[in-house]
Amino acid sequence: MSAIIECIPNFSEGRDPAVIERIVEAVSTIPHIEVLDYSLDADHNRSVLTFAGPPKQVQRAAFAATQMAAQLINLQTHQGEHPRIGATDVIPLVPINGISIKDCVSIARDLAAQISRELGIPTYLYEHAATKPLYKNLANIRRGGFERLREEISKPERHPDFGEAVLHPTAGATAVGVRDFLIAYNVNLDTNDLHIAKEIARCIRESSGGIPSVKALGVRLNRQKIVQVTTNLTNFQVASMHDVYMAVKKEAARFGVKVLESEIVGLVPTAAIAKIVQDYLHIKNFSAQQVLEYKILAKKMGWDSVDQGS
Amino acid sequence: MSAIIECIPNFSEGRDPAVIERIVEAVSTIPHIEVLDYSLDADHNRSVLTFAGPPKQVQRAAFAATQMAAQLINLQTHQGEHPRIGATDVIPLVPINGISIKDCVSIARDLAAQISRELGIPTYLYEHAATKPLYKNLANIRRGGFERLREEISKPERHPDFGEAVLHPTAGATAVGVRDFLIAYNVNLDTNDLHIAKEIARCIRESSGGIPSVKALGVRLNRQKIVQVTTNLTNFQVASMHDVYMAVKKEAARFGVKVLESEIVGLVPTAAIAKIVQDYLHIKNFSAQQVLEYKILAKKMGWDSVDQGS
Repeated sequence: MSAIIECIPNFSEGRDPAVIERIVEAVSTIPHIEVLDYSLDADHNRSVLTFAGPPKQVQRAAFAATQMAAQLINLQTHQGEHPRIGATDVIPLVPINGISIKDCVSIARDLAAQISRELGIPTYLYEHAATKPLYKNLANIRRGGFERLREEISKPERHPDFGEAVLHPTAGATAVGVRDFLIAYNVNLDTNDLHIAKEIARCIRESSGGIPSVKALGVRLNRQKIVQVTTNLTNFQVASMHDVYMAVKKEAARFGVKVLESEIVGLVPTAAIAKIVQDYLHIKNFSAQQVLEYKILAKKMGWDSVDQGS
Repeated sequence: MSAIIECIPNFSEGRDPAVIERIVEAVSTIPHIEVLDYSLDADHNRSVLTFAGPPKQVQRAAFAATQMAAQLINLQTHQGEHPRIGATDVIPLVPINGISIKDCVSIARDLAAQISRELGIPTYLYEHAATKPLYKNLANIRRGGFERLREEISKPERHPDFGEAVLHPTAGATAVGVRDFLIAYNVNLDTNDLHIAKEIARCIRESSGGIPSVKALGVRLNRQKIVQVTTNLTNFQVASMHDVYMAVKKEAARFGVKVLESEIVGLVPTAAIAKIVQDYLHIKNFSAQQVLEYKILAKKMGWDSVDQGS
C-alpha cells in the first residue's frame, strides 16, 4: 500500500523565475515525486510549489527544496507585504490517501528536525504537527515576520521546536505543519462595492458565526472593476463549494446584487466534486471510487483497502 | 507518454463465480493492468469485467481473458436471455487518455486477428473499429445469437472480419470494437406506472427526437415497486447526466410524478463530473486538470502535453 502526501511549500521569492525553477528542479530529481504546479506572485514577492508523492520521498523533496532556497534566497534583502519568516517560509503537508494524520505528523517532525540539524535553520511545528498550543495557529509563529522574529526568537515563548533560538542569517526560520486539504474558492459579484463583499464575507465565515470550516474575505478585483468573496474551505466534508456558493448568492440577493461566476484556485480532491455531483443529482452512494481516473490511481497505489474518500 | 485504454469484456457466464475469478486471474497476471471492477449477472447469465492499462498490455490481457473463457465456457450448453455469440461475447476498447481513436482501432484489429489466429475463434470488428458499414452496429453482428449465427455465418453478409466462416464449436465468435466512454445513468421515479417511465424515455432519447447521444428505456424495479428511466450517455460532452436528470424531471412533472433519486452504474470519467460542477457553480475554466488525483495520474502517465480532457 503506497500513501500519497501533498506538499505545498511557500518560498520568499516571487519575482525571479530562475530561483523557483532551480527549486523545482531540485524537487524533480527525487524519484516518485510529481510536481503538480508552481506559481510566482510578484506583488507579494513569494511563490508556491505543489508536489505529491510517497511520505519518505516527500520528506526528501521538501528537504531538497529548503536546501536550494537557503542557497538562493536572502531574507535580509527580501521585501514583500506577506508575513514571512524564512527563505522557505512554510511547508504544509497534507495527507491525501493511504496515510493517517498521525503518520503524516511523524514525517513533518522528521523533516523539521532534519532541516534544523543539516541546514542550521530553526524550525517550528504548526497545526496538526504542533507541540505547543500557541503554535497550532501559523499566524502566531509568523507574527511580525523575519525582522521581528530575529529580535524575539530568544524569548522562550518564541523558541523554535528544533534548532538554536537564533535565526539562520539569510534563510531565517521555517514552519513545518500538517493540515487538512484546503480548497481556495472565490465567488465574483456583479458590483464594484467593496462594502457588500466584506459584509457577505462576514456573514458566511465561521469566525463571525457563519458556516463551519469556512474562511472568507471581501476583496476588490481592480482590473475587472468588480468585488469578490474569496474563501478557504478547510473541510469540504463539512462545507462544500456549493454551500458557499448558495450562501453568497443568498446574502448578495439581500443587497440586490447578482453572482457573476465562481472560480477554484489550484486543485480540488475528486471526493470534493463527487460530493457536489451526488447532492446536485440526488445520486445514492456516489463516491470518488466511481471516478475512473481516481480508481486507476487508487489501484496503482493500492488504496482500495484503506480508502479515506479523498 | 503512456496511454490508457479501458477494456470491458463481456463473458457468457454469470452464475459460476469460479469461472470469472479465473478469467480475472488471467488478466491480473499481465503487468501494468489494473482490474477496476467485475460483476456477475445471474439473470442474464453473463458477466462484465473492467480493466485498464497501456495499449499493448490491454491487448495481451484481453487475449488472455478470451483464451481462458474459451477453456471454461461452452456456448452449446449456455442459456441466457441476452443476445450473445461467444464465450467472450464482446470486447469493447475505450480510449481514455493519451491515445487517439485511430490508434485504439489498430489495437482492436491486432487483437481480433490474434484471437482468430491463435484460438480459432472467428472475430468481428464493430463501431469505430468496423470495416463494414453493417457491422458498425453491434446488434447486427449479434442478431439471433450463437444459435442463429452458427447457421448463418457461411452467408457472405455474416462473414467474420478474421478467421474462417465457421463458429468455434464451444467458444462461438467474438466481437471486438472501439467505442467512446459510455455513462450508465438511471433516474428513479416515485411511481409504479411503467407507462410513464416508457413515455419519458421515449421523449428524451435521441432515436425518437430527444437529446442527442442519449439512449433511454423505461423499466420496472420490482423489489422497490417503482419505475426507472435507464439511460446510456454515449457522449457526455454533448449531453451530461445533469441534462438527462433535468429532462426526466421536467417530463415527469407533466405526469405529476416526482424524481426520487438517480444512480450511476459503474465508472464515470473525471471530466464528466468536472463539467457538471463547472455548470452548476458557474465556474470559469474548470477542468479535470484541476482535480488532484487526476492530475497526479496525468503526471505519472505523462498526459500533460496531449490531454484530451477525459
